[in-house]
Amino acid sequence: MNNLLDGIEEVLLMGPGPSSVPPQVYEAIGKKTLGHLDPYFLKIMDELKERLRTLLNTKNNLTVPISGTGSAGMEACFVNLVEPGDRALILVNGVFGVRMREVASRLGANVDALEFTWGAPVAVADVAKKLGETPYRIVAVVHAETSTGVRNPVDEIGALLRGSDTIYLVDTVTSLGGIEVRMDDWGIDALYSGTQKCLSCPPGLAPLSFSEKAMAKLGARKSKVPNWYLDISLIANYWGQNRVYHHTAPVNMTYALYQALLLILEEGTQKVFKRHLDNHLLLVKGLEEMGLKMVVEEPWRLPMLNTVWCPEGIDELAVRRRLRSEFKIEIGGGLGPLAGKIWRIGLMGHTARKENVERFLDALRKSIS
Amino acid sequence: MNNLLDGIEEVLLMGPGPSSVPPQVYEAIGKKTLGHLDPYFLKIMDELKERLRTLLNTKNNLTVPISGTGSAGMEACFVNLVEPGDRALILVNGVFGVRMREVASRLGANVDALEFTWGAPVAVADVAKKLGETPYRIVAVVHAETSTGVRNPVDEIGALLRGSDTIYLVDTVTSLGGIEVRMDDWGIDALYSGTQKCLSCPPGLAPLSFSEKAMAKLGARKSKVPNWYLDISLIANYWGQNRVYHHTAPVNMTYALYQALLLILEEGTQKVFKRHLDNHLLLVKGLEEMGLKMVVEEPWRLPMLNTVWCPEGIDELAVRRRLRSEFKIEIGGGLGPLAGKIWRIGLMGHTARKENVERFLDALRKSIS
Repeated sequence: MNNLLDGIEEVLLMGPGPSSVPPQVYEAIGKKTLGHLDPYFLKIMDELKERLRTLLNTKNNLTVPISGTGSAGMEACFVNLVEPGDRALILVNGVFGVRMREVASRLGANVDALEFTWGAPVAVADVAKKLGETPYRIVAVVHAETSTGVRNPVDEIGALLRGSDTIYLVDTVTSLGGIEVRMDDWGIDALYSGTQKCLSCPPGLAPLSFSEKAMAKLGARKSKVPNWYLDISLIANYWGQNRVYHHTAPVNMTYALYQALLLILEEGTQKVFKRHLDNHLLLVKGLEEMGLKMVVEEPWRLPMLNTVWCPEGIDELAVRRRLRSEFKIEIGGGLGPLAGKIWRIGLMGHTARKENVERFLDALRKSIS
Repeated sequence: MNNLLDGIEEVLLMGPGPSSVPPQVYEAIGKKTLGHLDPYFLKIMDELKERLRTLLNTKNNLTVPISGTGSAGMEACFVNLVEPGDRALILVNGVFGVRMREVASRLGANVDALEFTWGAPVAVADVAKKLGETPYRIVAVVHAETSTGVRNPVDEIGALLRGSDTIYLVDTVTSLGGIEVRMDDWGIDALYSGTQKCLSCPPGLAPLSFSEKAMAKLGARKSKVPNWYLDISLIANYWGQNRVYHHTAPVNMTYALYQALLLILEEGTQKVFKRHLDNHLLLVKGLEEMGLKMVVEEPWRLPMLNTVWCPEGIDELAVRRRLRSEFKIEIGGGLGPLAGKIWRIGLMGHTARKENVERFLDALRKSIS
């Protein structure tokens, strides 16, 4: 019988995720499957949680990978922390902010969205004004907007909420492992991420962490969480000391995430962040030398997700197709209002290396000339 | 830094899942990660869907793996097909029936549960009587109750519902790949499974299929599905011709499932089912020769999940611990009312081999003597 897996080529993944996976993580994901309640697997789970806490700069007990992709992390945060009628403020400046609004609305939240230009950051003064007008049970923002390449001022927004009853929810899908995330210092109550961006692990798990305040909000719910699979109280019992059977954790994906976190901590987080920044600067320099213009103003650029305007007269899709077929490089196109107008060039995790930047710049030069 | 992955031993997985994984599937899961919208990955997705249809004996267009474990499949079926107030009948004779009731209740369904003895099958006459009394929007049952080792008469229950407006929902987590599942012939409208049982793939994906009738029920909803991540309409667009970005599919898990399905179809489904049955009979013979008694009456026994009473005076947990530590074999204990009283011995997928049955019987003999 035909086996398409035999024809898989190695592609340099410089799109918006997944990113290229290091050999140690491929090795990890293929280790022998253990029972999901096997004592040795429980040790791996415990050490994984501890390493996730280190990377998130948090002491939160509830710090676990959710058994789904980054989007399941978003769903898990909202479905546990929102009750029908709760007032939620979503800060929107890209696709993932729009998605947050949709997820929260479906759960019956009373949602206000504060919208900002795609490609520009959330304006803290506007948020402060809005918070002065209305009390919110939850405020949510995306740290690294994968659709635009913008870093939002998560720390400054957190400072506005300090000491309030408001739950502060942050999407760190694309930021975690590429730039600093300081969950406790920034006053973040609930956070989720994904494995396939700067953690350089295949997609499939969503790291998630809840503060004591988030756990208290969850504990005070009037109704059961309307999602058994993502009920954090049940998941906490499964990943906690009691090991109460809930679902079957994706064992081999858990190995992969364990290994991916280990590689980051072994290299050293500051070195990893500097590697992202250095390669980002190298990429921007190369793009600008070609006459291309970046979408985002310099202070708000994400090192791991670089957006650049496609020059007039160039067929952006044709360039991406040529990069993929001739040079075995994947980059991304624009989404929403930016579709057809920009390229999204990822430098995430293992992908963020000088040789990859040079290989890409050379290929792009040939593809647009 | 300490790396626990280096210490993973190969354990013979004879519990209630995950099952042991064949070498080709380990190889598949470690193949190079492609972009989740890469044209080559899309080909793999399409062929996977086609093979899943073959195994399910269905023509349903909407036949995909959901990006979560089997429990996410359950959640996806209910959250898409139940609207608040819908009358649902859940047939309960084990943990997974209880779970269905809980999932449906949280979603606001008006749930009736028809309960049967744990270890006995659902009685079709009782179901017929209940259906005669009350019209239901949805009837749900577990094909292979992993908690008790019972096969429920899914085909006969389906016959009761034929021609009605009722949606017939079936859990095939443990049955799929071990015994026949004939989705279309049995009148099943919605079905989910898991990868880590008889498909012998690591846990992490949930095969799911919806009939045209289920899709029509979904299309006629008055309210949006209160779960963005598991919204089948959005997932159908992602896995369909349009490839509308929804979430990022777990690429490497998808490779593993593709390979696992290929192995089953290459061996031939009838041969695979016979292998399960033959090894089950060999196991039962061996257990009975040791004087042990099976929990389930012969006609309702599952070949892939064998429940046996722990003899008086034997510490069931101590036996399981000894099997794991001394013989590197995992089996399961009982759940709910059967906790501490039974063992659950899995013969799922790649695990269902003569040498494994013999190795286990020998180890059990030594562990209880």
